[in-house]
Amino acid sequence: MKAKIYITLKAGVLDPQGKAVEHSLHNLGFEGVTGVRQGKYMEIELATEDKTKAEADLDEMCKKLLANIVIENYRIELE
Amino acid sequence: MKAKIYITLKAGVLDPQGKAVEHSLHNLGFEGVTGVRQGKYMEIELATEDKTKAEADLDEMCKKLLANIVIENYRIELE
Repeated sequence: MKAKIYITLKAGVLDPQGKAVEHSLHNLGFEGVTGVRQGKYMEIELATEDKTKAEADLDEMCKKLLANIVIENYRIELE
Repeated sequence: MKAKIYITLKAGVLDPQGKAVEHSLHNLGFEGVTGVRQGKYMEIELATEDKTKAEADLDEMCKKLLANIVIENYRIELE
């Protein structure tokens, strides 16, 4: 089973990496860019076919390792 | 207009960061994880409402700055 995990900074948390990308895009001539937020994306392969267990496991993985839940949100998609 | 950009390593390209996450997940007791691929995710705000122009611009941004097209694939989603 394959899972996709999206990790984004919570609203209000400063995103210097996103700001740097935004400035670079402006310098390249893309003046229409009004905001960039940088996040993480992960694809995880799981041996189990049990969707409920997979969801519970992935939620725990995010809380324990993958996301910093103080400043980040995460979203899990199962295929 | 808001765009989401997903950048992933091409198949066959080594992903040491993904491997490190995989090992850490095993160490935390998630033995069912058989693979992790690490990618990037970006949310870009654009001033334009012209979808065709936005798509063309985003494609150019990916090629020029956001993705390394030698080793990475990118996918653009417009909202």
